[in-house]
Amino acid sequence: MPTDTEYLGYAAGVLTTFAFLPQAYRMIRTRQARDISLTWVTAMTAGVFLWLCYGILKQSIPIMAANGITFLLLLIILVIKIRYRAHSDSGRHQ
Amino acid sequence: MPTDTEYLGYAAGVLTTFAFLPQAYRMIRTRQARDISLTWVTAMTAGVFLWLCYGILKQSIPIMAANGITFLLLLIILVIKIRYRAHSDSGRHQ
Repeated sequence: MPTDTEYLGYAAGVLTTFAFLPQAYRMIRTRQARDISLTWVTAMTAGVFLWLCYGILKQSIPIMAANGITFLLLLIILVIKIRYRAHSDSGRHQ
Repeated sequence: MPTDTEYLGYAAGVLTTFAFLPQAYRMIRTRQARDISLTWVTAMTAGVFLWLCYGILKQSIPIMAANGITFLLLLIILVIKIRYRAHSDSGRHQ
């Protein structure tokens, strides 16, 4: 049976994974990505992919699941950031 | 000595931690946070705080360090998001 500490880890994982759902949804809806740093999205996508590999090597289902879902959501955010970059970078500020 | 898998974990942790540095910097510089979902920032801040507690209970220095730094950067992002919310939500779209 998982300990209280493990439950805390699961709660943390659920929060930091599903947090990306409203962020991806917002960007799909508004098609705006100006306030998102491209360095952040790129580094996060690469980092979460490494966490996914780490989870596979460690055979840890929670690490695989959390980072697999986050990786897909970050790919959506990355595509929108690149696609709407030119659009987002013009005309919204003086 | 750490194994190759552990090195992979460290690389993943460095990427997903320091990714927040350019994001926080961008928001401090532009004072714009419109494209950031408040739900994302709130859930991430809460989740990373739980990861920090998890790291303390597990006595894991890498989990504590990574999530401690990320927590501070997310607090900056959260403050900017709340502070410039009204400003950001007016006049940037039709």
